[in-house]
Amino acid sequence: MEFATALVFIFIACACGIVWAIFNWMAVHKVEIHHKHEGLTELLQGAEQEKIETLLEIGEHIQDGAQAFLREEYTDCSVFLAIMAVLLIFVSPWSSLAFILGAGTSMLCGYLGMAIATAANFRTAFSAITSLANAFQMAYRGGCVMGFLLVSISLSILSLIIIIYNAIIVKSDENNYEDLVRMFDYVAAYGLGGSTFALFGRVGGGIYTKAADVGADLVGKVEKNLPEDSPKNPATIADNVGDNVGDIAGMGADLFGSFAESTCAALVVSSTQLRVQTENGNTIEIGQLMYPLMVSAFGIGICILVSAYAVYISKVNHINKIESTLKFQLLLSTIALSPIIIGIAYWALPSDFVMIAADGSIQLSDLKPYHAFLCSLLGLWSGLLIGYFTEYMTSHSYTPVREVAKSCGTGAATNIIYGLALGYLSTIVPIIAIAVTALLSMKMLSFYGVALAALGMLSNLTIGLAIDAYGPISDNAGGIAEMSELGENVRESTDALDAAGNTTAAIGKGFAIGSAALVSLSLYGGYLTRIQTYKVGEEFPFAQGAKIDDPVIFAMLLIGAMLPYAFSAFTMKSVGKAALQMVEEVRRQLHEHPGIYAGTEEPDFRACIAISTKASLKEMIPPGLLVIVTPTAVGLFFGPQAVAGLLPGALVSGVQMAISASNTGGAWDNAKKYIEAGFYRNDAGEVKKKGSDEHKAAVIGDTVGDPLKDTSGPSLNILIKLMAILSLVLAGAFCKTGWLYQG
Amino acid sequence: MEFATALVFIFIACACGIVWAIFNWMAVHKVEIHHKHEGLTELLQGAEQEKIETLLEIGEHIQDGAQAFLREEYTDCSVFLAIMAVLLIFVSPWSSLAFILGAGTSMLCGYLGMAIATAANFRTAFSAITSLANAFQMAYRGGCVMGFLLVSISLSILSLIIIIYNAIIVKSDENNYEDLVRMFDYVAAYGLGGSTFALFGRVGGGIYTKAADVGADLVGKVEKNLPEDSPKNPATIADNVGDNVGDIAGMGADLFGSFAESTCAALVVSSTQLRVQTENGNTIEIGQLMYPLMVSAFGIGICILVSAYAVYISKVNHINKIESTLKFQLLLSTIALSPIIIGIAYWALPSDFVMIAADGSIQLSDLKPYHAFLCSLLGLWSGLLIGYFTEYMTSHSYTPVREVAKSCGTGAATNIIYGLALGYLSTIVPIIAIAVTALLSMKMLSFYGVALAALGMLSNLTIGLAIDAYGPISDNAGGIAEMSELGENVRESTDALDAAGNTTAAIGKGFAIGSAALVSLSLYGGYLTRIQTYKVGEEFPFAQGAKIDDPVIFAMLLIGAMLPYAFSAFTMKSVGKAALQMVEEVRRQLHEHPGIYAGTEEPDFRACIAISTKASLKEMIPPGLLVIVTPTAVGLFFGPQAVAGLLPGALVSGVQMAISASNTGGAWDNAKKYIEAGFYRNDAGEVKKKGSDEHKAAVIGDTVGDPLKDTSGPSLNILIKLMAILSLVLAGAFCKTGWLYQG
Repeated sequence: MEFATALVFIFIACACGIVWAIFNWMAVHKVEIHHKHEGLTELLQGAEQEKIETLLEIGEHIQDGAQAFLREEYTDCSVFLAIMAVLLIFVSPWSSLAFILGAGTSMLCGYLGMAIATAANFRTAFSAITSLANAFQMAYRGGCVMGFLLVSISLSILSLIIIIYNAIIVKSDENNYEDLVRMFDYVAAYGLGGSTFALFGRVGGGIYTKAADVGADLVGKVEKNLPEDSPKNPATIADNVGDNVGDIAGMGADLFGSFAESTCAALVVSSTQLRVQTENGNTIEIGQLMYPLMVSAFGIGICILVSAYAVYISKVNHINKIESTLKFQLLLSTIALSPIIIGIAYWALPSDFVMIAADGSIQLSDLKPYHAFLCSLLGLWSGLLIGYFTEYMTSHSYTPVREVAKSCGTGAATNIIYGLALGYLSTIVPIIAIAVTALLSMKMLSFYGVALAALGMLSNLTIGLAIDAYGPISDNAGGIAEMSELGENVRESTDALDAAGNTTAAIGKGFAIGSAALVSLSLYGGYLTRIQTYKVGEEFPFAQGAKIDDPVIFAMLLIGAMLPYAFSAFTMKSVGKAALQMVEEVRRQLHEHPGIYAGTEEPDFRACIAISTKASLKEMIPPGLLVIVTPTAVGLFFGPQAVAGLLPGALVSGVQMAISASNTGGAWDNAKKYIEAGFYRNDAGEVKKKGSDEHKAAVIGDTVGDPLKDTSGPSLNILIKLMAILSLVLAGAFCKTGWLYQG
Repeated sequence: MEFATALVFIFIACACGIVWAIFNWMAVHKVEIHHKHEGLTELLQGAEQEKIETLLEIGEHIQDGAQAFLREEYTDCSVFLAIMAVLLIFVSPWSSLAFILGAGTSMLCGYLGMAIATAANFRTAFSAITSLANAFQMAYRGGCVMGFLLVSISLSILSLIIIIYNAIIVKSDENNYEDLVRMFDYVAAYGLGGSTFALFGRVGGGIYTKAADVGADLVGKVEKNLPEDSPKNPATIADNVGDNVGDIAGMGADLFGSFAESTCAALVVSSTQLRVQTENGNTIEIGQLMYPLMVSAFGIGICILVSAYAVYISKVNHINKIESTLKFQLLLSTIALSPIIIGIAYWALPSDFVMIAADGSIQLSDLKPYHAFLCSLLGLWSGLLIGYFTEYMTSHSYTPVREVAKSCGTGAATNIIYGLALGYLSTIVPIIAIAVTALLSMKMLSFYGVALAALGMLSNLTIGLAIDAYGPISDNAGGIAEMSELGENVRESTDALDAAGNTTAAIGKGFAIGSAALVSLSLYGGYLTRIQTYKVGEEFPFAQGAKIDDPVIFAMLLIGAMLPYAFSAFTMKSVGKAALQMVEEVRRQLHEHPGIYAGTEEPDFRACIAISTKASLKEMIPPGLLVIVTPTAVGLFFGPQAVAGLLPGALVSGVQMAISASNTGGAWDNAKKYIEAGFYRNDAGEVKKKGSDEHKAAVIGDTVGDPLKDTSGPSLNILIKLMAILSLVLAGAFCKTGWLYQG
């Protein structure tokens, strides 16, 4: 395929994605809120004016809080990113520029996501007054804006970088692939920038949201018996702000990182290894490398149709339909994309190609486009499998969560034991799916295959993001409905939307982890290729690759496997510490102002927001540094072989912890929701709902699960990805210093 | 060194160890219990006759329960072991025989340990009436019997096997090392037998003890507000039986496995790789391989002196002295063994040797005895470091546990979050210690060095076992004192003994995990050597070793890292299920017989014992099969390369989980003890003890920690060791079937 043709399609797709996002954005904003809304008067039964005003006011507070946090977070991170950008100039000014663009795109997407989410949340609550279908549409449209904007913007900026770098760096000689390799090495820093910011976005946002959530729950639910999101709880608004900065902005940055990195990994590996055999030897042209970007571009197109189906055709007029509609979005996009991917492979790829090894010899020959689309399909479908299995393990429609709920009958301890066991067990299927995908795609196309599998898994990322962002929007809507006292029936609708959101959030995390594992593996492949081709004089000192029985590699494999534990310890303690500060503040307010509990005085929620903001920005530093400093220091002091052990160690251990933490947390949350919804019966057949001992036990599980599922678990994705891409970018530096040590 | 000389020293040391054990056994049994004991009448203040009779009766019940369980467990396991022994005949009849002897030794040691523990427990309680020093001595002597019997018996049986196999199998030609290699391959099945039984001992015993403990706590402490070990709780005796079958018999089998396997690993690796360069080429004699056994033999000797110091010289007349005395035992034995190990190295090893690679070329040359003793010392001292660090993380004398205790002030959820974070954090130091030990010893002596490091860590195993077994004996003594209502002051003494026991138990687990990691690594080295030297015609199909970027190896690395999660899920759910059965039985008894709670009726503890026995024997099957079937199936279907990825995956992931689970559990237990001892003050400065909300939160943490620290955590040691030795024994079979797949 010609480079120009590919670019035309990519930019058309991005434009369509952005137009569709703007269209949904406008649809969300079209809902004007006033108390004379049709049928509203009777539904709200008097005093409606006041309730609607409260709703608007709360929506504004959340928006302000989220913006204020992002402003501070971006300011703090900018300093760090600037330092990294300056250091990267020593690698190459081009890398530094791509790094800045990657970080900037990540920030932009996070900000836009937060903006739409805080516009959609109170409108969802408002729409729930009139109908469930409207409320669902509002929340899902909000999610779509996020999904389509993020993917379209990132893809177009990445393509622009490639166009510009290609024009400047690549000489138009015949065998220009050495320039191509160099150029894509620089481009890879785009992924590094995205992931570096994502680290702070995920960790900082994760600590923020859970400090507020745990703090609010500990005093409100456990001590004072206030319902979730009670307006009497001073930490409630901070909790809702947290959903936006953690689950929306943080998660968006994370998945942008996955997308950018897997694309960069595919480009780096394919420019190094993919060759077409011609009379003039093995060669490659840039247009022949555009297959991964084309998949993403067509992914946007297909997902527009799929999401339009959810918005216009499927009617979510009953709470049973929520989860199935969202799940169907995933299934539909997977099915629709499969033939498209096959078509693109034959269109965009050379009809016959080879992969060369580090030493220039041919590693895999007789490769056809079907090898490439098989890798992509493996990724796409194993993503669906992971998603559906995650749903099975974390939705209260199935046995596993119900068993956990049942274990609340003997108290919090058995709830915790069962929940932990569920999380551990839930690793089996995703890990086998990832392992089989990795095995087959490596067999077919080496690490290029792994990168294609990762991109295949992310080819319906827009839908994945939309149903993922739908969750926190609904969660917020529920909170706003409760705080504005919109009544039982509204809350029931938003509760149902929220419960489905817990499950889709877990599905989203499953995708994020699965793709992170594959991305990280393909980046590791790129790293190994880099160090194996590193030459000193006539020697290739690291040509032998990564043998497990090499002392340095084994020792570092062990230490790498320890890093996710250290990282989780840091993040969980950070949440714990920040939550304790929040608890003290909430207790102080309730103690000093008894009017708050009585409902006659308004709590000072700004103080709580300030605590979460300050604590999270401070606490994100140690885990952040751990991720960045460890591979850098290991590489510089112990050489590139040491890093070749460290990365797979962190990968194989981190992915297990991430899956089990996310699913354990999701299961506890939904076990609690199961009890709250009145489905739980004890042995004597009595229904036990809120306020019962069973519910209290469930709340303890939910609270423990909060930092697991929203802070430490998802942050581990970034740990494994960021370490890999950082090492890839710094591979040359490691080889120079490592040479001293190894020699 | 001559083979005969080595044997003389080994058997003398074993004989001394056995004599010292018998001597302590007699000292324990010399305490005759009658109510006319000096000064007893006034201490017990009347009704003493009855209390002493209760004490004797309870001791008998525990003994009966433990014996009954071991009988059933041994019967069930024998069937499985017999099947494995028959299958092993296909590998070699010699392997089968060594396997049976290994399993038999493991059973014997477990039984003897249980016998002395159930004789020492009630005598410790009885001695606590008169003095703390007597009680401590009784418990520690009990531990010594266990430690010295186990090590001496195992070492002497292993030596006997070597003598007999050497006489029959090894031809007395000059270059007989091919026979030697074959012979030690057969001997390695001794370790396999030990570990296979240990699997069931640890898992079955672990489920037993924790089902009873959790069940007893859930109803007794949480629902009915009964104190720990209340005679009104029908599950109390089952709980105490559990300590003996889980923490004594199970733990003994586990550490016997480590000891047998690391010795076998050292012998297998050294017979294959260690050579002396002579005029007639590279050669080796059996006497030159006896260094590892000599270290263990002298270890027994030194430990006799060290333990005699504790028994005769140090006076534990104050509760502050308990922990320091036990810790000092470790330090003393480590210091005393260091120069001895140096001496043995120069005495037993050739003065100049080489290690050869799989292809017969020289891998490491110019090796001296100091390389060997450095490996042993690395292991010995990093064991001490792990032990001391574990004590720091799990004793309530230091900040980490106190922080966890403090977090109980905001409820069970923060207690769980802080406890999990503590466990995660506690992996850092042990992992770095293990990694550095592995790195340096592999650099110096390849996998032989790793085996020597493992044996170095286990060279003071007798002391390690003694202080480890001391824990459950004291725990039992406390239970018996409570049940016999021996009074507050007696209970205070036994509580203090027990709290120190929690810490030493965690230290013991730290040793067990550290040594398991090194053992498993050295066995893995043996496995790699086996498959690399496997020859088909003129080809060595697996000569390239284990490269991480090989698709099969990476995929299996990922799956291997998942196995500890699956295994933990199985074991934790098993405990949960068995505990629920126990809860129902206890509730039933208390409900149907109100006289039990009133204290007028005796509970039916036999029913509880029966439930624990039945549940644990049934529930140990799935996790047991997972460990045995997975590597076997992977090897037979996917070939030896796949196993070469599976083993290190399970190793690097399992060791983290094992450390964090053990330390989290230990910390929660001692955080609870910290509160119970009245050390905890809330922010207002009030002391919060038993019955407070803080204490209830701590009990929940303790209950969650029970299966983590006593079932899933320690069982993971066996998972990583057993998979490795099983693969080593089956390596040949994998290569034959694997050849089909790989080709």
